[in-house]
Amino acid sequence: VTAVRIGLLGCGTVGQAVVRALSDGGAPITRASGHRVEIGPILVRDPDRRRPGVDPSLLTTDVGRILDDPEVAIVVEVMGGIDPALGHLRTALGRGKAVVTANKQLLARHGAELLEQAERSGTELRFEASVCAAIPVIKVLRESLLVAEIEALTGIVNGTTNFVLSEMGRGGLSYADALARAQSLGYAEADPTEDVSGADAAAKLAILASIAFHTRVRLDDVTFEGIERIDRDDMTQAQELGYAVKLLAVARLVDGAVALRVHPALVPQDHRLAAIGGADNAVLVQSRGAGQIMLVGPGAGGTETASAVVADVLSVLGTHRGSFLHNALADAGRPVQPPGESRTPFYVRMHVADRPGVLATVAGVFAEEGLSIESVVQRGQGAGARLVLVLHEGLESCMTAALERLRELPEVSGEPVVLRVLDVAGEGR
Amino acid sequence: VTAVRIGLLGCGTVGQAVVRALSDGGAPITRASGHRVEIGPILVRDPDRRRPGVDPSLLTTDVGRILDDPEVAIVVEVMGGIDPALGHLRTALGRGKAVVTANKQLLARHGAELLEQAERSGTELRFEASVCAAIPVIKVLRESLLVAEIEALTGIVNGTTNFVLSEMGRGGLSYADALARAQSLGYAEADPTEDVSGADAAAKLAILASIAFHTRVRLDDVTFEGIERIDRDDMTQAQELGYAVKLLAVARLVDGAVALRVHPALVPQDHRLAAIGGADNAVLVQSRGAGQIMLVGPGAGGTETASAVVADVLSVLGTHRGSFLHNALADAGRPVQPPGESRTPFYVRMHVADRPGVLATVAGVFAEEGLSIESVVQRGQGAGARLVLVLHEGLESCMTAALERLRELPEVSGEPVVLRVLDVAGEGR
Repeated sequence: VTAVRIGLLGCGTVGQAVVRALSDGGAPITRASGHRVEIGPILVRDPDRRRPGVDPSLLTTDVGRILDDPEVAIVVEVMGGIDPALGHLRTALGRGKAVVTANKQLLARHGAELLEQAERSGTELRFEASVCAAIPVIKVLRESLLVAEIEALTGIVNGTTNFVLSEMGRGGLSYADALARAQSLGYAEADPTEDVSGADAAAKLAILASIAFHTRVRLDDVTFEGIERIDRDDMTQAQELGYAVKLLAVARLVDGAVALRVHPALVPQDHRLAAIGGADNAVLVQSRGAGQIMLVGPGAGGTETASAVVADVLSVLGTHRGSFLHNALADAGRPVQPPGESRTPFYVRMHVADRPGVLATVAGVFAEEGLSIESVVQRGQGAGARLVLVLHEGLESCMTAALERLRELPEVSGEPVVLRVLDVAGEGR
Repeated sequence: VTAVRIGLLGCGTVGQAVVRALSDGGAPITRASGHRVEIGPILVRDPDRRRPGVDPSLLTTDVGRILDDPEVAIVVEVMGGIDPALGHLRTALGRGKAVVTANKQLLARHGAELLEQAERSGTELRFEASVCAAIPVIKVLRESLLVAEIEALTGIVNGTTNFVLSEMGRGGLSYADALARAQSLGYAEADPTEDVSGADAAAKLAILASIAFHTRVRLDDVTFEGIERIDRDDMTQAQELGYAVKLLAVARLVDGAVALRVHPALVPQDHRLAAIGGADNAVLVQSRGAGQIMLVGPGAGGTETASAVVADVLSVLGTHRGSFLHNALADAGRPVQPPGESRTPFYVRMHVADRPGVLATVAGVFAEEGLSIESVVQRGQGAGARLVLVLHEGLESCMTAALERLRELPEVSGEPVVLRVLDVAGEGR
């Protein structure tokens, strides 16, 4: 195990989340890569600001403490903006340090230049966090789909506009009201121009299309239109025509050329992109080799962006010796829960004789085994009556016990069919 | 550029697609990895069978020509089955060759042992193609989400059962009829037991959960139930209750233990997994770091499986020096299409004076600019009338010209709103 020092430029929301993730993830990172990560120095403007979980002694206002230190092998840039970030990254790459950045504008404007510099210096530049936060779309395009011959990439890559359009479509809100709601929930900035104009999506598309089509795409190559002029009636009209309205970023190969555009578009309601709601992002990639692959996830957020930064750090360190797999598997890791201890709601269908008291008998069995009934539907009459019950969450072992007893009942014919109900309680946090 | 020789075990549908993809993708692979791939020898049982695109001189029935050749650095296993594949891979790993395999049963049963052997020999074992074909779920779990602290993984990982359930839900087919349809379309085997019983999904879940939870999961740890006993009425009943029926593979952390199960389940109709139809696969990963990430794509197919095999070969060769990015970007790659040449259908909304002849005038402008109208809706009367037109696919430059003329018309007030319609013509192949 060798130590690798990581310097940070910036320590706002994303930077603090990066520090936490690198600290908390220390053990798996070491297992996977064979390296022990050491954090700092961290460049900040105001060292006295409160930053929970960040050791204040690591903070510095002197970028030289990072760029001039030969011990710093990786520079993580989460300060944002073009200047002075661009200069810092040029220097870092020029000195052979690997760079991981979350800076979309910097990449869209100066990506090609920085990549060239990384190449000349024999180091590398990673930028997963610059597009769609934690969704690993850059890695997938760059590594998994490298030879898949991508034909088209269609994305919902701006969460703010997707939230606004979803609210307008769902709740009949006006554009202004939906935007105000997005702002109050933190999904839109006080000045939302960058998002609602399509400029943010255009920058992301420039980055994605460069990788997908192995082509230098300049930010100016992407024409974009925003959502500012869409009104409630357009949403209604679109719905009547069978469409949802989405801000799409589209790059496709047309006669050997890359066609690029960002604009609001009508998407058929049964298309998979129409189902991407709220602040989520999605990227749909059509290729000859891999068919249609879609990646969906949160397109913003400090923790989510930090997750992509840490994944890039790990890519720089390299995991392809795979030792974490061995260690993890050999260690046996976590215990496996016995099947009977699984808890879900249940759907049970059975055929019963339609005699007085049957339902009471069946309900009694479930109650005695600790399972409570949410709803019952009985259909048909006589010997062929069909009883469908939905039960509240309960233990698999209770269901097994109940089924054993139900099979014994003369009123029940055939084997009951049991389906579990997907537990969505833990989702959507 | 150094040459790397790749030996293949097996040359059926997937193997032939691997040979084609490695040949066709030679240039980008070399750019990305710095290595030139050389293919062969290829182990087959019957060298005389027709294999389009495969050089017959590479075929051999003697596995020693691959395993004993120190020049062969990577062994790709696409022969399937446990025996003799397991023995071949043990030998290959023992001799320090990297192994890429598409063999799900082998991985689920002997994965931990093979990974240990790879570790001891200082080489590596990759197996993206063993689960969900081209969907890069193993890479994402192993590299992008390594430190994301995964809490739950919920997958639709068997295309056959998803197709059968989709047909039953959509078309009211019986289980037997839907299965027959799946068989006639090539989505189900003549003996479908492995798929419909849930055993195939269980093997995939064992592999996915091992990686997601850094834990050794044995195939026997996964309890599974199939879809054989679900009938038409269950589908109807589920729909009335607001659910779709899906065969789910679920792994989640419960009190520090990994709970694992494969069973048909009711999924709320507005849940994102309910929208995964036909033979598609999807894996939804909930983690503390990255929120909810979903990957969707084709779960089977020779080309798609080969795409994952080639991605693994590329991972073994290593792309993290990123030189392909530099080369691709510096070469400028493909031209960018001028924005005016984009072709889409259009939605146009404008406010017009409700006078006789307005529609004729507007329609005339579009016609003269080469745009044809699919449908028109006019609402309201007097000065506030609202005209919504949907136009067939046309050139962006024609729309620009038409808009310029419309703005000049005294009957049109304000700026028309134009939305493009997502072109889905090229999708779903």
